[in-house]
This record gives sequence, C-alpha cells and structure tokens, in this order.
Amino acid sequence: METEKQLVEPQTLKGFRDYLPADMAARDFVVDRIKRVYERYGFVQIDTPVLEHLETLLGTGGEETNKELFRLESPEEDAVAMRFDLTVPFARILAQYRDQVKLPFRRYHIGPVFRADKPGPGRYRQFTQFDIDAAGSLSVAVDAEIVATICEALRAVGLTTGEFRVRINNRKIVDALLYGCGVDNIATHKHILRVVDKLRKVGIDNVCRELGPGRIDDSGDPIPGVKLETSTIEQLVKFISVPVSTRLETVEAMRAALPESELREAALAEMVTLAECLASLGVHEEDAVFDPTLARGLDYYTGPVFEVELPGALECGSVGGGGRYDGLVERFMDASIPATGASIGLDRFIDALTRVGKLDANITTTQAMVVSFPGTPEAELLRVASELRSAGIATEVYMGAANTGLGARMSYAGGRNIPVAVILGPDELANGTVAVKDLRMGKEKRKDIKSNEEFRKAGRVAQQTVSRAELIATVREVIARADEK
Amino acid sequence: METEKQLVEPQTLKGFRDYLPADMAARDFVVDRIKRVYERYGFVQIDTPVLEHLETLLGTGGEETNKELFRLESPEEDAVAMRFDLTVPFARILAQYRDQVKLPFRRYHIGPVFRADKPGPGRYRQFTQFDIDAAGSLSVAVDAEIVATICEALRAVGLTTGEFRVRINNRKIVDALLYGCGVDNIATHKHILRVVDKLRKVGIDNVCRELGPGRIDDSGDPIPGVKLETSTIEQLVKFISVPVSTRLETVEAMRAALPESELREAALAEMVTLAECLASLGVHEEDAVFDPTLARGLDYYTGPVFEVELPGALECGSVGGGGRYDGLVERFMDASIPATGASIGLDRFIDALTRVGKLDANITTTQAMVVSFPGTPEAELLRVASELRSAGIATEVYMGAANTGLGARMSYAGGRNIPVAVILGPDELANGTVAVKDLRMGKEKRKDIKSNEEFRKAGRVAQQTVSRAELIATVREVIARADEK
Repeated sequence: METEKQLVEPQTLKGFRDYLPADMAARDFVVDRIKRVYERYGFVQIDTPVLEHLETLLGTGGEETNKELFRLESPEEDAVAMRFDLTVPFARILAQYRDQVKLPFRRYHIGPVFRADKPGPGRYRQFTQFDIDAAGSLSVAVDAEIVATICEALRAVGLTTGEFRVRINNRKIVDALLYGCGVDNIATHKHILRVVDKLRKVGIDNVCRELGPGRIDDSGDPIPGVKLETSTIEQLVKFISVPVSTRLETVEAMRAALPESELREAALAEMVTLAECLASLGVHEEDAVFDPTLARGLDYYTGPVFEVELPGALECGSVGGGGRYDGLVERFMDASIPATGASIGLDRFIDALTRVGKLDANITTTQAMVVSFPGTPEAELLRVASELRSAGIATEVYMGAANTGLGARMSYAGGRNIPVAVILGPDELANGTVAVKDLRMGKEKRKDIKSNEEFRKAGRVAQQTVSRAELIATVREVIARADEK
Repeated sequence: METEKQLVEPQTLKGFRDYLPADMAARDFVVDRIKRVYERYGFVQIDTPVLEHLETLLGTGGEETNKELFRLESPEEDAVAMRFDLTVPFARILAQYRDQVKLPFRRYHIGPVFRADKPGPGRYRQFTQFDIDAAGSLSVAVDAEIVATICEALRAVGLTTGEFRVRINNRKIVDALLYGCGVDNIATHKHILRVVDKLRKVGIDNVCRELGPGRIDDSGDPIPGVKLETSTIEQLVKFISVPVSTRLETVEAMRAALPESELREAALAEMVTLAECLASLGVHEEDAVFDPTLARGLDYYTGPVFEVELPGALECGSVGGGGRYDGLVERFMDASIPATGASIGLDRFIDALTRVGKLDANITTTQAMVVSFPGTPEAELLRVASELRSAGIATEVYMGAANTGLGARMSYAGGRNIPVAVILGPDELANGTVAVKDLRMGKEKRKDIKSNEEFRKAGRVAQQTVSRAELIATVREVIARADEK
C-alpha cells in the first residue's frame, strides 16, 4: 500500500474518544433500555446524515454554535457542516417531507453530533444524543408526555425516585416575570437569564450583584452587571426564591411572586394543565418538579423547558433536557409546526450513571469460551463451538497465537469476564468428554487461598468433566449460576 | 434567532439520504438480527469516532480512496478526514491500546462511513457498515469462523440456502497462478485481476481480448490490453473456468488447473483446511462456495477473500465481503498482528433484501393508539395511555391539531399501520368504557364492500366496546391477532 515503510502514530483526535468493549457494552445496555421506553411511548425512529448544508444549520443554535461547527466542502463545492444536534435535522425533515410525514409526528433519533468547542473532562467534540420530539400539537399534554417518557427512561436504567430529577420551568412564566417587572428589552432578558442560571454556582448574593451594578469575581476580574433597579431585583429574587414543593403548590407560589398580568394568567393556566397531565401519566412529584430557578435555554424555547440531573452526580451537569420550540420549523417553510422534545446526552449520562454506581463495568455479551491445549485439531474445537451456538450460547473459540499455553488462554477468558470455559484437552478428546469450568466460581474460591494445594483444589471444585451429550446442559447451569450474582 | 425572516430550503445533501420511520424500522430489524448472531459467535462491540487524523487513513485504501476522502481541519488546524471504512480504525485500535485490548480480539462495529465518490442508485456518500474482524491468529480456522458468522447472519434475516451465496477465493491461490504463469510484475497482477473481475459483466471472450491485445468497447472506445502471451492467457482461462462444485472438489480442480509450485501446495493446503473448518461449523456447501473467478479486492488482502451476493438481487452487486489482511496493523506499529474480517454494507443489503421480498415494509413498533373526539379531556386520554404502557403495550396518544375530526385521527392510525385503536368518545367517558378497534381487520373486511351499509357493518365487526377493566386483555387479543398474520 505504501511505497516505503513509515510508521503512523495510532492516535485519537483531540476531543474525540474510542469505545472499547466494556464502554460499548455499558452504552448498549443503556441505549437498549431507553429505546424500549421511547417505543413504548409511541415514538418511531428516524435517522439523518451526519452532514447537512451549512445554511440548514447556521444560526439555529446562536452565535456560539455557529463558531463551533465543523465545516467542510462537498465534492460539488457546496458549504457543508457536521450536525451539532438532532433537533435541526428533525425540523428539516418535517418541512422537507410534508407529504410523507403525517402530523402529529413523534420520533426518536440516536446519533453522533459534533461541536468544535474546547474539550475537557466529560466534554467531547463528538457525542451521542438520544432524542425524542413530537410535532403537530400546541397542547402541553405533549410536553407532559415528553417528561413522562424521560422519567420512565431514567427508571429503565435502574434509577429510582430521588436518584434523578427533571426540573421544569416555562418560557411564558419567565416572560410574565420579566415583562411584568417592566423589562422589555430582549437582550436584557437574555442577560438576566444567563445571570440567574449561575445561581447554584455563585449563590443568591452574587446573582443580586450581577443583576445590579456588577461584581468582582474570585480572580479579581470585574463582571459587568445588568444594572437593574433595586425594586426590579427584589421582584426577581422573590420569584426565584419560590420553594420547590408539589407541582400545583409551586404554581400557586409562583402566582404570588409574579406581577399581575394577562401573560401571567395564561402562563400559570398552562402550568396547571401540565401538572394535571403529569399526574395522569403517573409521574411522581419528586421525579419532575417545577423549578423557578431553571433559566438555561429559555431564550431558545417558547414554552415549557426541562432539564435532567442526577443529584448524586451533579458534577456531571445536566444529563439531558429539552422544551417546546414552536418556531424552529418556520425556518424552512411558510407554515408553523409546533414541536416539543427532549434530548439525553448519552456520554454524559453514562458518566453520571457510572459515578452513582448504576452501571456494571463487567457486562459481557460472550457467555462461553472454547479453549484447548496448543495443537488440538481446530476442526474439533469449531464443532464444539458450533454446538454451543446452535443452543443459543454466545461462544468464542480461543484462536490466538498457535503457541500460547493453556494457562494464558484461561486467563484471557477470565480477563474478558466470560463465565464459562469449555476445555478440550488430549484426555477429553480421547474419551469423548469436555471439561466445563465455572470461571467466576474459580476466582471466588481462590480469594482466601493459603497454599498451592488449596489453589489446585479450588480450581478443581469449579471444574467438572462431562460427556459431550451433557455439554449444553452443564454450560447452561454454570451461566445461570453466574447470572444470579 | 435570525434578524430577518428568510426561508432556508429543506434539502438533503447530494449523495446522502434520510431514513424515515419505515426505512428505520426495516434497518433496525436487520441490525438487531445480525447483532445477535455476531454476539453468538463471540464478537464484542466497539465504536470509534467518525473523524480520524488524515494520516491515519491516507493510503490505506489506495489512490481511489485518497481522492474520495471528505477532508477538513480540526480547531487545532490538524488535517482530518471522515473515516471511509471501519477496518482502518480497527487496525488503529489494535495498535493504540496494546495494553487494554488483549489478543486474540474479535470485535463487531456498526457505523456510518463516508466516501466522496459519484452518487448513483443505491450508492451513497454516507453508508452504514456492519463489520466483524478477528485479530491475533494466522489460522484459517478464524477465516472459517468469519464466513460461518456471515452465513448465519444472512439466515437470521430470513434468507435460506440458494437465496444467498458467499464466494470465496484466496490471494495465495492467485499468486500461485500468476507467478506460476511467469507474471512477476505486481502492477500486471493488479491489471489482470481487474480484467478478470469483469468476467460476469463482459463474458470470457472479452476478458481474453483484454488480457491480450485489448478491445473496443460498446461505445467504440479502445480498452488497452494486458498484452499477455496466448499460452499465459490459456492458463488463466483454464483456471477461471474451474467449475464451482463442493469446496473440496473445487480445490482439487484448482490443483489440476494451476502450474506446479511450492506456492501452489501451500495455498491449496490452506484451502483444504478452510474447507474442513467450514464443514465443522456446519456451513452448507451451497452457502459458501470456492470460486476461482472472484478477483475483487485481491490486491488488498493477503489470504482468503470472500464476497456475499443475493442471486435474486445481483443488480445490487456485492452486499458484503472481506478477507484476511495480515499487513494492515504494521502501518501503526513495529510488530505484525494478523487479522481477518468481513463487512456487510447495510444500505445495499437492505435494498437487496427488499428486492427479494424479505423485508416487511409495514413494520411498526407502535402497537396501540389512543384516539378521542375533539374536546375530550387530555388528562383522561393520558391516563388510558399510561395504563396500556404499564402493561408493556407500545402506545401513542393522538395529539395533533385540536380541531382534527375523529375520521382523520383514525386514518392517521391506519397510515401508521398501528394494529389497535382505543377510542374514547363522550359515550365511553360517560359509561366508563372504551371502544377497541382492530384496524387491520377493519381494512381487510372493507376490501369487498359494495354498499355504505356493509361498510358501516364491517367497521362495527372490527370494533367492540368493553369496560375499562377489560381494556388491557382486549387490546392484547387484537395485537396477538395482528401478529399472527
């Protein structure tokens, strides 16, 4: 292939990552569980290309996202970029396939997205999003369905009440607050929301300073303020201090903290309906809370907005979120299609699940390994493997360097965390038998070993020699034993 | 988001495609079946980024592939390209994770790959490959495992003997042929293989002309020849005319057609072992045949090479293929790691399966749809949906434009191919009942309708009103009826 031999350094691009089998087994487990929930809630799957016309993406995620696009040229020299989310492609699909895609349309979509921002721990330039969106209805009942689906997806991977929390706010509530306080400038709205979003990180006093004249941060740098009047700041603080309680109680507390207006009545009525729908869907009060301090993404969304966090892994940040965006499809067509949805950031979610101990690091899809002494005829090994696979047992035949000894072969199987080894040695071949070894029991028993004799004995306890006719039944027994643990 | 409203045309990039729900359901079905087979054969999954350092990819697929790379720059201004296959990333993984990835290593990998070539029917610039590869052994027993896995994967999606065929040849056999004929020049080898690869398309006479002085093609253009001597051409023709028979018989016929040499003996011995291993793995003679005319990819591979086709959809070309490549990992490290593998081209495979009628175009993951007259309280609909989902029934609630009539709602459910509609009208709400409608039976019965009266009657036969307590059992019955068909 090359005219002269020159080594290429094998390396992953900065900000990108590989998934080795243990990572992938964990991801597959999570994806499979979530997928089944998405389907149970009536979402159907679509997929779109990784590349889009640049103009399809440009401006949809704000200035920040424009800068973070991976750009390139098509062979026809069209300006092209890698998608940065799955929501814009969804909006494109809705506009492009008006005849084929009937409304209402609820779809799920899993795939890699790309952002050329600064990589850091848990921040990658390619990451996987796992989205649900529903188009075609203005009703908050659909937003409730989205929240219920996400809660159920979180439960499906083993999280229980208290271990996750969906925080919900509403753009309309925030509009009622800000316009009600006399703030009419959109740029000021965005500035206020950015400041409020820092609440957990910097505390209420610093938020007040930033809403007012500004402050000096820990490094001594000045942070310019929004320069609101004290009375306005007081109203804002009153609102974001509303305690999180049951959803309907929170709505009433929000009512008390909001200036009276038509906007307020409409927004609160929407939240009451949302609360009722969540109750109909059986969403626990603790799983999905109304939270007036949630400010992120509120300049992008048009109605309810949600964010998902794991209290045991807050350092991972939000592991998912979403909201209603009734304006996005208008970008592509002359009519409006209302839509709402949510996205799970799979890489960050898996990091968070790992931190809270909800993922088994040793998942393996392979159940049995056929091992032999060096020199055993390969055709014979394959026959045994074939028999196991026909019985539905996921089986690898050890096939490495021909001169590898039995010990190394067995330790390979142990390292792969495979529960059963089926050993074909010269004795077994001569007698028409196989040795079946429980590799996990072998490991367990050896833990408290004091002598070589005990070591050998422990090994023998976990291993039994059976006739070829008993092979399948014996292997199944050992796998069942491993699954129990 | 935008300062002035300007519509963006919603369009897919040239050479790229979207997967709408019906496409995706078919793809998911195929992927799921194949995946289970790959796991049953002991392959474990990995994933790698879509982007690689340019130098990682450059030159690995030959000049043609270099030209077809989608290239871009990383934020650090490194030269980057989108991967064009999954084999090069696999070789990189083997070299990069020497401590973590123990040999032997057999992995599967599914993901999009990118080639900026000319798009055409069934030829996309982004397509999905679904690969298995096994590294760490020189034994052709591993090649046999690859072939057996692929055959089993093809069976798992519903193909039977005669509906698919894996053609197998061997680079070593071809070397024995060409060197045996006195052709020592590698460029000439490649040229000969390109010509032989056209055999099916242009016939043996044209192949002979191209091996000799050259020929004029149908459009009148001259095709330069390899300019071999007549006696050499006769030897080549003798070899590629070896009839396809049982694998061991074909090996013997190849022996008779090959010039005697040490190369020949070694190559034939390998093919005999491969035949024995395939027999041990229970691979039918008709499913995987030794075929001396298979010439594609032989300049890339170092040992056995395979190609998969569906005789009923030959116009789709090869739907998969692979072979042994013992040299690729050396690109990245000072040691050699032998490897062999195969790739299924998922898009083309699905096209071919559709052509031979093996894919149900109407797969849907949604089982039930809750529908109501306009104005029914949404909280009530959600409660019914929640009940169905808790029973494991995949349920969508119809939530479209508020003023859509019941007829349009029902026809939406029919269009989505959902088997059951659960209808909540005012009567049902008042009486605490639900109407359960078998949408497929409704369609069937209406086929031979002659009058309006019959139409209404047919509709009623497929529909029954039951108490809320009977809801789940009734829906399950209808789904079971739909599944039987």
